[in-house]
Amino acid sequence: MSISFEIDERVAAVARRTTEFVRDVVIPEEQACGGNVHDGPEPLRRRLQEAARAAGVFAPHVGEEFGGLGLDLRGQAVVFEAAGYSLLGPLALNCAAPDEGNMHLLEVVATEEQKERFLHPLAAGEVRSCFAMTEPAPGAGSDPRALTTTATKTDGGWRIDGRKWFISGADGAAFAICMARTSGGPGDAGGATMFLVDAGNPGMKIVRNIDTLDQGLFGGHSEVVFEGCEVADSDVLGEVDQGFRYAQVRLGPARMTHCMRWLGVARRAQDIALERAADRSAFGGPLAELGMVQQLLADSEIDIETSRAVLWRACWELDQGRSAAQHTSIAKTYVSEAVNRVVDRAVQVCGALGISGDAPLSRLYREVRPFRIYDGPSETHRWAIAKRAVRAAKERRAAQ
Amino acid sequence: MSISFEIDERVAAVARRTTEFVRDVVIPEEQACGGNVHDGPEPLRRRLQEAARAAGVFAPHVGEEFGGLGLDLRGQAVVFEAAGYSLLGPLALNCAAPDEGNMHLLEVVATEEQKERFLHPLAAGEVRSCFAMTEPAPGAGSDPRALTTTATKTDGGWRIDGRKWFISGADGAAFAICMARTSGGPGDAGGATMFLVDAGNPGMKIVRNIDTLDQGLFGGHSEVVFEGCEVADSDVLGEVDQGFRYAQVRLGPARMTHCMRWLGVARRAQDIALERAADRSAFGGPLAELGMVQQLLADSEIDIETSRAVLWRACWELDQGRSAAQHTSIAKTYVSEAVNRVVDRAVQVCGALGISGDAPLSRLYREVRPFRIYDGPSETHRWAIAKRAVRAAKERRAAQ
Amino acid sequence: MSISFEIDERVAAVARRTTEFVRDVVIPEEQACGGNVHDGPEPLRRRLQEAARAAGVFAPHVGEEFGGLGLDLRGQAVVFEAAGYSLLGPLALNCAAPDEGNMHLLEVVATEEQKERFLHPLAAGEVRSCFAMTEPAPGAGSDPRALTTTATKTDGGWRIDGRKWFISGADGAAFAICMARTSGGPGDAGGATMFLVDAGNPGMKIVRNIDTLDQGLFGGHSEVVFEGCEVADSDVLGEVDQGFRYAQVRLGPARMTHCMRWLGVARRAQDIALERAADRSAFGGPLAELGMVQQLLADSEIDIETSRAVLWRACWELDQGRSAAQHTSIAKTYVSEAVNRVVDRAVQVCGALGISGDAPLSRLYREVRPFRIYDGPSETHRWAIAKRAVRAAKERRAAQ
Amino acid sequence: MSISFEIDERVAAVARRTTEFVRDVVIPEEQACGGNVHDGPEPLRRRLQEAARAAGVFAPHVGEEFGGLGLDLRGQAVVFEAAGYSLLGPLALNCAAPDEGNMHLLEVVATEEQKERFLHPLAAGEVRSCFAMTEPAPGAGSDPRALTTTATKTDGGWRIDGRKWFISGADGAAFAICMARTSGGPGDAGGATMFLVDAGNPGMKIVRNIDTLDQGLFGGHSEVVFEGCEVADSDVLGEVDQGFRYAQVRLGPARMTHCMRWLGVARRAQDIALERAADRSAFGGPLAELGMVQQLLADSEIDIETSRAVLWRACWELDQGRSAAQHTSIAKTYVSEAVNRVVDRAVQVCGALGISGDAPLSRLYREVRPFRIYDGPSETHRWAIAKRAVRAAKERRAAQ
Repeated sequence: MSISFEIDERVAAVARRTTEFVRDVVIPEEQACGGNVHDGPEPLRRRLQEAARAAGVFAPHVGEEFGGLGLDLRGQAVVFEAAGYSLLGPLALNCAAPDEGNMHLLEVVATEEQKERFLHPLAAGEVRSCFAMTEPAPGAGSDPRALTTTATKTDGGWRIDGRKWFISGADGAAFAICMARTSGGPGDAGGATMFLVDAGNPGMKIVRNIDTLDQGLFGGHSEVVFEGCEVADSDVLGEVDQGFRYAQVRLGPARMTHCMRWLGVARRAQDIALERAADRSAFGGPLAELGMVQQLLADSEIDIETSRAVLWRACWELDQGRSAAQHTSIAKTYVSEAVNRVVDRAVQVCGALGISGDAPLSRLYREVRPFRIYDGPSETHRWAIAKRAVRAAKERRAAQ
Repeated sequence: MSISFEIDERVAAVARRTTEFVRDVVIPEEQACGGNVHDGPEPLRRRLQEAARAAGVFAPHVGEEFGGLGLDLRGQAVVFEAAGYSLLGPLALNCAAPDEGNMHLLEVVATEEQKERFLHPLAAGEVRSCFAMTEPAPGAGSDPRALTTTATKTDGGWRIDGRKWFISGADGAAFAICMARTSGGPGDAGGATMFLVDAGNPGMKIVRNIDTLDQGLFGGHSEVVFEGCEVADSDVLGEVDQGFRYAQVRLGPARMTHCMRWLGVARRAQDIALERAADRSAFGGPLAELGMVQQLLADSEIDIETSRAVLWRACWELDQGRSAAQHTSIAKTYVSEAVNRVVDRAVQVCGALGISGDAPLSRLYREVRPFRIYDGPSETHRWAIAKRAVRAAKERRAAQ
Repeated sequence: MSISFEIDERVAAVARRTTEFVRDVVIPEEQACGGNVHDGPEPLRRRLQEAARAAGVFAPHVGEEFGGLGLDLRGQAVVFEAAGYSLLGPLALNCAAPDEGNMHLLEVVATEEQKERFLHPLAAGEVRSCFAMTEPAPGAGSDPRALTTTATKTDGGWRIDGRKWFISGADGAAFAICMARTSGGPGDAGGATMFLVDAGNPGMKIVRNIDTLDQGLFGGHSEVVFEGCEVADSDVLGEVDQGFRYAQVRLGPARMTHCMRWLGVARRAQDIALERAADRSAFGGPLAELGMVQQLLADSEIDIETSRAVLWRACWELDQGRSAAQHTSIAKTYVSEAVNRVVDRAVQVCGALGISGDAPLSRLYREVRPFRIYDGPSETHRWAIAKRAVRAAKERRAAQ
Repeated sequence: MSISFEIDERVAAVARRTTEFVRDVVIPEEQACGGNVHDGPEPLRRRLQEAARAAGVFAPHVGEEFGGLGLDLRGQAVVFEAAGYSLLGPLALNCAAPDEGNMHLLEVVATEEQKERFLHPLAAGEVRSCFAMTEPAPGAGSDPRALTTTATKTDGGWRIDGRKWFISGADGAAFAICMARTSGGPGDAGGATMFLVDAGNPGMKIVRNIDTLDQGLFGGHSEVVFEGCEVADSDVLGEVDQGFRYAQVRLGPARMTHCMRWLGVARRAQDIALERAADRSAFGGPLAELGMVQQLLADSEIDIETSRAVLWRACWELDQGRSAAQHTSIAKTYVSEAVNRVVDRAVQVCGALGISGDAPLSRLYREVRPFRIYDGPSETHRWAIAKRAVRAAKERRAAQ
C-alpha cells in the first residue's frame, strides 16, 4: 500500500450522481427558500430527500443496515463536497449538520433499542434532531469544561436544568441529544452525560430562534431551556459521566464532514467567479486577462486544492481508527479559513453582482464566516495544535 | 507651519457633541429599524435629524450659508468618524451617502437657481437625493468610460435613456443626479453630462430595490430605468460633456467621507470586542489575557490608527486644493480593507455572540464588505496607484 | 484502490535511515562549510556521499540500473524531505539540484551512449553537472520563450553563442546541459535544443560566481558565457527543436523535488522553534505558553501539513504518468511560500538567537527566499493556474 | 492649530540637501564596504561625516549648542528617512543607532561634566558609543525586568558584573552606557542603574562580534562581558535605581528614529522595483503593465504612505512632551513589518536580480528582518497595545 489519491470507483460513481443531482435538481430549488434555509419549509426537505433517494445518493454516510450507502470518511469527503455545492445539497442527501453527526454518534454509542427509536427514523429522513451542548457565557462554549447545565439523579431517571444556545436544527427536531453535567462543577473536565430528550418533553422549551449571520441550516439555531426536564434511565446515551469522551467521538468526524460540505461551497463560489471572469469585460478586455483578477482566481484554486488534500489526509487517519486529533484540528482550522478566503475573493471578482442577491455569493459570504467559530474557534484549535507540537518536540528530544 | 495632529478646538467640540449625541440618542434608536437601515422608516430619519439639529451637530460639512457648520475635510474626518459609530449616525447628521457627496457637488457646480431648488432643501434635510452613475454590465462600473446611458439633445432640453443600478438612496429621493453620455461611445473617456432629474419625472422609474449584503443605507440601492426621460436645458448640472470631470470632483472627497464613516464602524466593532474581552472568561482567565485575543485586539488598534493617519493625510491634501488622486486612492484602498479586518476580528473575539444578531457585529460584518467594491474596487485603485508610482519614477529619472 | 496516505514500507525504511543519517552524520558536518555551501569543499562532498552510500541512502531517486534505489516521486517526497532537514543532506544523498533533475532528464531523453558518458558518473557521484537555461534580461527568465542564446548548425555539429546566469552548480561541474535556440527568435515558443557540453570545452567560460542571498547549493550560481562553443551532433540531447518540451520533462518533477527538500528545511526551522519555545522563559513562564507564540507555532504546523499533503498529491499525479501541470504549479507556489512563512516565524520565535549565526535559522532565512523566484516565480505560476482554471470553466460550460 | 502635513520650510531644505547628498556622495561610497557595513573601515566613516558637515546636514537631531541642527522629532522624521535611503546615510549624518539614541539620552540625563566628556565628542563624530542593555537568555531581552547584570556598591564607586550581547557598535566604541541591576533581582521591575564605562576599562571586554543576518550597522553587534568592572560614582548616568525609567526616555524616540531610517530603506527598495518594472519586459510588454506586478508595487506604496503617516503621528505626540507609549508601539510594530513587506515585494519584482548582490536588494532584505525583533519584538508590542486598549475600554465604561 502506498500514497494514493485514487478515488474508489464506487465512491466516484456516487459523487458523479451527486454532482448531477445537485446541478439538475437541487440548485433549481434554491430560490424556493429565498436563500434563507434556516426558515426552509418542511415540504422542500421532503421533496429533496425523495429526489435524492431516487437518484441513489441518499444517506451516503449511513451504514447499509440503516438504509445508507456506508461510505467511509474518505468516501464521504468526495461525495459531501459534491453535495455542498448547494447549501441545500447536504439536506437533500440527509447528510447535513447536526443530523449527520448525530447519526454517527448513535451508530457508535446507542443501545439497540435506542437505535430503533432514534437512529432508524433519523437515517430515513423521517425526522430531524439536534445536539444540545453549547451554552451562553459563562457556560460551555469554546471551552467545553465550562458546562453548567446539570442532570440530577431522580428515582428511575434524571432531571435536566440549564440553558443552551446555538442549538442547530432544534426548531422542528424530533429529539435532542443533550449534554449535562452529572458530576463535578464548571471548569472541571469530568462528569458529563448525554441524554436523549424527546421534543415533546414539557421540560424542554425552544425560547427563540437566533438571528445569525449564516442562514444555510435547516431549522436555524435556537436557544433552548431545560427546566425540570425529566428523562428515564433508558434515555442515557452511552454511559453516565462519559459525555466528554463521546463528544470527541462525535466532533472529530463532524468537524471533517463540515469541512467537506464547506469545500463544496468554496468550489461553487470559485466557479461563479471563474465564469464571471471569463464572460465580463473591463478596461478593454475580459476580466480573466487582468493580472489582479488572475491572482484572486489562482489563490482560490490553491486554497481549494490544499484544503482538499489536507482534509483527505485527516479523513484517512480517522478511517485507520486513529484519534487523529492533530490532523483534524489542522484540517478544520485551515479549511474553514481557506473557504472564507475563497468566497471573499469570488465576491471581489464579481463586484457589485457579488454583493447583491442576484448571485448566490452574498449568501455564501454570510454562510462561511461562522465556520471559523463553530466547532471550536480557530484560536482554540491553534492552541491545541501548538501544545501537541511542543509536547511532541519534548518527547523527541527525550528519546534521543 | 509644520506637521500637526492637533484637532482644531471648534472641531473637537463638535466631535465631542457628536459622540455624546450618538451614544445617548442614536444608538438607542438602532433597534427601531431592526438593523436594516435600507428599509428604515422616514419618521425615524426626521426624528434623528431634529435631534441632531438640537444637539448642534447637524450638517457639519455644509457651508454656513446653507445652514451647516462649514467644516473642512479634516474637520469632517473627526466628526464623521464620531457619527459613523452608529450606522444611523451619518443619517442623523445629514452627512450620509449619497446626499453628502451630492451636496458637495452642488455647492461646487450648480447654478444659483439650481442651488435654490436642489441644494437648499437637501442641506436642510427636507428631501433626499441620489446619484445615478453605475450601470449593470457591460456598462459603467469600475471602469466609468464604459458608460452606456445616453442623453440626446432635443428642442430645449435632453432625452435620457439607459439603465442604472446600485443607485443608493433612490427609493424616496426627491431628485437624481444622472450621468449620461452626450458624445462618444462606450469605452471613450470624453462626453458625459450630469443632469438633475426630479423624482416625479415619468421617464425615470425605480424598477426594484436590490437585495444586498449591506443594509446600512437609508433607502437602500435601487435599479433605475431612464426611458425617454425628458429634462430641460436648465437641468444640466455644470457644463455639457464635463461629467467625467465633475464625477472626480464628487468622488475624491466622497471616497474620503466614506472612509471617515467606516472608521467609526471599525471603532464601534473594536470597542465591542474590547469590552467582551475584558468581561468574558475562558480557559481559567479573562479573554483579554489570552495571547491570541491580544493579537486580534492589537492588530485592530494598529489598523485603526494607521487608517486614521493616512486618511487625515489625504484630507489635508484635498483641503490644500490639490487633486490628491494618489493620496485618496491609497486612503480608500487601505481604510476599506482595514475596516474589514477590524470587524472580522471583532466577530472572532466575540465568538457565537459575534455572529448572532444579539450584538451589532453581524450587521457591521455585512455592512463593511461592499466597501472594498463601492467607490472603485481595490483592484482599480491599486492599478491606478501603481501607474502613478511608475510614472513618477520615470519622471524622477528623467530629471536627473 | 482508494485514497491513502500510507507510506510504503520500503520507502519508510529508507526515510528512517535518512533521518538518522542526517542527524548523526550530516548535521555535525554543517560547520565544516561555515554555513556557506556555495563554496563548500569537494572533500566534504566526497565524504558525505561515501557515508550516505554506507548508510544505504545514496541516490534514492536513481534507477537501480544506475546504482540508485529507484524510488518513484512519492517515495522521493518522503525521503528527500528527510534529507532536506540539513542543507547538506541532499548533497550527501546525491539528490541535490541541479544534478538530481539532470539525472532524471538523462534517464528519460539521453541515448545509451550519452547515458554511459554522462549519467553513469553523475549518478555515482563521481562528477557534478549543471543546467544552463536562464539568461540575464532581456533573455530567458520567467518567460522561457525569450531565449536568446543561439545554436547554429555547422558541419557535423553546432556552434553555441550566448550568455547564461544563475547556472547552479556550474563551478566544478563536469558538463552542462545547455539550452539554445535553433529556430525562431526571442518571443517565439518553438525551436530550442538541448546540448551536452563538456566543462573542458574552450567555448564555455564561467565568468563569475554570483553573490546571492542563498548559499546552500554546492558550487553556487554562476554566470556562464558561450562563445563560439563547438559541439558535435552526438552532443544533442534528444531531438533538435524539442528543447522546450524536454524542459517541461525536467521542470515538472524538478519543481516537486525542490519542494520536498524545502519541506525538510521548514521542518528543521520549526523544530528549532519548538525546542526554543519549550526551553526559554519570558514574562514569567515558558515561551510555549504565550498565546502569540502558540499562534506562530500552530501556523507553521498547518503550513507544513498542508504543504506535504498538496505536494504528495502532485507527486501521485506525476507517478500516474500525467503531466499534472496544474497540480505541480499549485504545489510549487504554495510550498515555496509556506516554507518562507515557516522559517520567518521560527526566526521570530527565537528572537535575537534567530537572527544570529548561533542557530542555523539566519542561514535558512536567506536560503528559502529565492524559492519564490527560482523555478518560475509565484506570479508566473499563478498566471498559469488562473488561465487553466478559466479554460476548464469554459469547457465545463460548453459541455453542459 | 489644526491637522497639518506641511513640512516646515527649514526642515524641507535640510531634507532636500540630504537627498542630494545621499544620491551624489553616499550611494557611490556603498561599494567601499562591499555591502557589509558591520566591518566598515573607520576612514570611510570619517570621510562621510566630513562630507555631511560640508553639505550642511550633519547631526540634524543634536541641539545647536552641541553642533547639531536641533530638529524636533517631526523634523528628524523627514530628514532621517532621506538619510536612510542608503544604509550608510545615517552613519554619514551621525544619526545612526546607537549613537543617535545615546546622544538624546545624554542630552536629557547627563551632568554638565558628563556632557563635556561624552556628549560633545560623540555629537561631533569624534568617537562612537554603545548601549549595553540586552543580555543572552535568560537575561534581559524582550522582557527588560529579567536583567541579571549587577552593579555592587564599592567605596567611591561601583563594580559591574554580567554578560551582554547584541551590543550594537561596541567594537570601536569609545564608551558604553551599561545598564545594571542595583536593587531587586531578575523578574523585578525596580532597581536598575545606568553607568558610563570607558572603552579602556579593563573590566569590560568584547568577547566576540556576532554573525547576524543584518550587516548594516557600523561596528556590528558584539557580545560584551563585564567582570569586576570598576567605575566611579561620577560615572553614574542620572540617578541610582532610575535606569528603567531612563531606558524609556531613550527607547521611545529611539524606536521612532529607527522607523524613520527604515522607511528610507523601504523607499530605496521600492524605487529600485519601480525602475525595474518600468524598464524590463516580460510576456510581451513592460513588467509595469502586468497586473500582479502592479499589485506588488501598489501595496508597497500603500505600506510606505501609511507607515509615514502613523510615524509622523507618533513623533508629533512625542514632540508635545507626551509619553506616547501607545503611539510609538503602534508605529514601531507597523513600520517594522511594513518595511519587511516592501523589501520582500521589491525582491520579487526584480526576480533573479533581486536575490543577487548585483542590486542592493538582497542586502536590504537581510537588513530589515531583524527590525521586527530589535527594540522589542512585534509580539511584545502587541501585548502592550492590547493591554492599554483594554484598560482604556474599562476606564471609558467606568466613566459613563
